[in-house]
Amino acid sequence: MKFKIAILGTGNVAWHLAPALEEAGHTITEVYGRSEKNIKGITQKLYTAESKTDLDFTESIAEIFIIAVSDDAISEISDEIILPEDSILLHTSGSVSIEALGYSSATYTGIFYPLQSFSKDREISFGEVPFLLESEDQTTLQKLKKLAKSLSHLQYVVKSKDRKALHVAAVFASNFSNHMIRLSEEIMARQGLDFEMLKPLIIETLSKSLELGAKKAQTGPAKREDLNTLEAHHQFLNYNEQIAEIYRLISQDIIDSI
Amino acid sequence: MKFKIAILGTGNVAWHLAPALEEAGHTITEVYGRSEKNIKGITQKLYTAESKTDLDFTESIAEIFIIAVSDDAISEISDEIILPEDSILLHTSGSVSIEALGYSSATYTGIFYPLQSFSKDREISFGEVPFLLESEDQTTLQKLKKLAKSLSHLQYVVKSKDRKALHVAAVFASNFSNHMIRLSEEIMARQGLDFEMLKPLIIETLSKSLELGAKKAQTGPAKREDLNTLEAHHQFLNYNEQIAEIYRLISQDIIDSI
Repeated sequence: MKFKIAILGTGNVAWHLAPALEEAGHTITEVYGRSEKNIKGITQKLYTAESKTDLDFTESIAEIFIIAVSDDAISEISDEIILPEDSILLHTSGSVSIEALGYSSATYTGIFYPLQSFSKDREISFGEVPFLLESEDQTTLQKLKKLAKSLSHLQYVVKSKDRKALHVAAVFASNFSNHMIRLSEEIMARQGLDFEMLKPLIIETLSKSLELGAKKAQTGPAKREDLNTLEAHHQFLNYNEQIAEIYRLISQDIIDSI
Repeated sequence: MKFKIAILGTGNVAWHLAPALEEAGHTITEVYGRSEKNIKGITQKLYTAESKTDLDFTESIAEIFIIAVSDDAISEISDEIILPEDSILLHTSGSVSIEALGYSSATYTGIFYPLQSFSKDREISFGEVPFLLESEDQTTLQKLKKLAKSLSHLQYVVKSKDRKALHVAAVFASNFSNHMIRLSEEIMARQGLDFEMLKPLIIETLSKSLELGAKKAQTGPAKREDLNTLEAHHQFLNYNEQIAEIYRLISQDIIDSI
């Protein structure tokens, strides 16, 4: 099943998603953005997509409209877009409810959330990206499954409430684990040490974590309840109260969850 | 340069290190442990090593003695071991100072710290393990470099003070990032969601982090200073005060370091 799709947005998700959809055999009819210049960055990677800077899509031949913009701009576009009859309006956000599309002129609404971190300068292999889908309309949900399946072998139907919980979990697993690496980089730099030394350890720990589960993979002074080392580390970090407190609190939580 | 080496300890480091040293052409003369059973787990992987449950090594032909035991047992073994003349006594710990070997009968002391997380049930490719070396004696340090080089292409000379800082950095990069994944697993499990969904995101984020540096790789609500989402997530976590506080504190630190 091939679809005619309009893309609304010119950010990282639109940048990767539009060409991937075209490659999967769908037709990208239009790309909407605030400026021609932003739109062109995407349309030049596509065959036939037209540029659009207004939200009147009454003449569009698309049946699926994908909003791929920042979270706080979703409801604005949803409220303003003028859609043809029987069209499906989707957004791609992990943290915005399906209700944000509730006041639109769309006949059907849904979520088409690729659970991955997108940057313009990094290739994404969509085949490995989990797509989280939601729609109150069963026919629409079937179409979303087919659309996702054309890109990836991982599809999950997840309701807005669960998607919200998942987003919190993703912040811990992705943003916060990345910030732990950031703090580590800073400690090394402050001491004049080469961060490269720590990379094999990070790779091994996190491979182990994803393979065995993080509880089994845990090691270190908090896991061993080695209070002398914990105290020495806490002392070492007293040049930055906030980081010392992060050290104390996470160590305590590791101890509590042994 | 091939060495005759005695291994003191039967834990994870000894388990991996002894066979790797033998494979690199060195001779393991003895393995010391508290019980024959523990020792046998290692000696059965070796050609000629003898078992030893006492610390009198006056008759040993080894010139290098590597203490690979838990941190708090290092100084005890160091104090009690009776060594032949001109021998080198090393330990393999990231967090214990070289001074812990100061009261031993060794002529030379040093650190031979493989910066990696070892588990008995996981193979380690030593070629990629950074070895952190230290000795006050230059000849000993040259021998340590040769010994490390026979196992790995990564050797660094790091003084005890810097090694201590590095250990704090390693706790953040390895133990704490792993704990963030643990908390994420728990949020998913609590909501009845499949943690598999998050794995591609984790792999991509951390690959990006190691490639570009964690500052550039950061994304998410704190990085965007999206206070509405931060507040909603904090509310969501109010079933566990400590985890909610971890969320608040790390988010604040991300905001402070933008």
